[in-house]
Amino acid sequence: MHRTKVTIVEEALDANNTIARANRSDFDRASVKVINFMSAPGAGKTALLERVVADLPGIRVGVLEGDVEGSLDADRLAALHVPVTQLNTSAGFGGECHLDANMVRSALPNVPLGEIDLLMIENVGNLVCPAEFRVGENTRVMVCSVTEGEDKPLKYPLMFRTCELVLINKIDLLPHLEFDLDRLLDNLDQVHPDVARMLVSARTGDGIDAWREWLIEVTRRDREEALAWTSTQP
Amino acid sequence: MHRTKVTIVEEALDANNTIARANRSDFDRASVKVINFMSAPGAGKTALLERVVADLPGIRVGVLEGDVEGSLDADRLAALHVPVTQLNTSAGFGGECHLDANMVRSALPNVPLGEIDLLMIENVGNLVCPAEFRVGENTRVMVCSVTEGEDKPLKYPLMFRTCELVLINKIDLLPHLEFDLDRLLDNLDQVHPDVARMLVSARTGDGIDAWREWLIEVTRRDREEALAWTSTQP
Repeated sequence: MHRTKVTIVEEALDANNTIARANRSDFDRASVKVINFMSAPGAGKTALLERVVADLPGIRVGVLEGDVEGSLDADRLAALHVPVTQLNTSAGFGGECHLDANMVRSALPNVPLGEIDLLMIENVGNLVCPAEFRVGENTRVMVCSVTEGEDKPLKYPLMFRTCELVLINKIDLLPHLEFDLDRLLDNLDQVHPDVARMLVSARTGDGIDAWREWLIEVTRRDREEALAWTSTQP
Repeated sequence: MHRTKVTIVEEALDANNTIARANRSDFDRASVKVINFMSAPGAGKTALLERVVADLPGIRVGVLEGDVEGSLDADRLAALHVPVTQLNTSAGFGGECHLDANMVRSALPNVPLGEIDLLMIENVGNLVCPAEFRVGENTRVMVCSVTEGEDKPLKYPLMFRTCELVLINKIDLLPHLEFDLDRLLDNLDQVHPDVARMLVSARTGDGIDAWREWLIEVTRRDREEALAWTSTQP
């Protein structure tokens, strides 16, 4: 029974990669850079998007908002007057705990690729399965909140390993936590040595300028640089 | 393609329920009550177990510790001299984001059922899939941290709906957050009206006495009471 299950999963991932490449072709043709944005529930993805999506000089941002149900985050972002497309995994996708390439493909007719330069795909809040499915992105960013403890890179290594940037959020709470930042950074280096990381607070604005600069740089980098990053990934 | 996928998922869940019933028979025969303990990553499941497992008068506790990888939480709990069994979903289970009945069954030979009264199954940190798979538990408890925001019941309704008790953790941080507790409780009532809830802090010990009392009561209640709860569940 186990062997069967593993085979099905591998076939599903193969199909996923095929569709992810098709999505990527569409993004490339429209000259849209795409970021797969991931975290545990409540780590602050939406708040970190709210801080930057309407404030990237010369860059038009769109958001594809993945949730199991509802449109709470999409409503927050739409209030900033950027195009937001809601993608619910409960509607026809069985309440999946992640986005996959086919779900993203099904939403593309509603994403105005011709009118944006950068598409932020906010994945379902989950540190496991979202890391297993490429959706056609150029790169991946994850958010790790200091309230989650220092051990998360060791417990969810694939997520931390497949990201180009780790945003360490809610640093305004550090004075109120028993949290050893050096230990988090050591654990991060254990699973993904020297991965780029930024200390940020969506609430106070600390570190947001660096996050904004990074997004601008990634949106502008050419395909060769992007491929160089991708080729180092598992 | 979609229809096929849905059918496979339904068959998997049927098989899961069959195995969950077999697990439950084994637990009943050994007179062990079982709690499926769930939350998002970093909400404080292990810390809330550390507070009580060695301190339940007349009740011998065992822990089955579910993680994708590693044994960090199991090591913390074993230090309290309770029997802890590690179950990694990466070892032969494809890195699953949840425990299912078959995984739990595979671990049962290593759980000393004859020597415990209460088995706490600490699930993988995830608010989606763990709620979809019964593992043979008598009841379900979830932890929701106030650092995750007020919207989580609306975004992950199945998890909140299938629990008998919601522990609202990290209340020591409330003075430092922009967090509306009444709104969380309203959202909770929207998806699971009148579900039992406790305000706790694993760090300061606030509310831990109530959590301990609840565990004692659940361990001692007879089968009819337990069934009465189960029959009201979806």
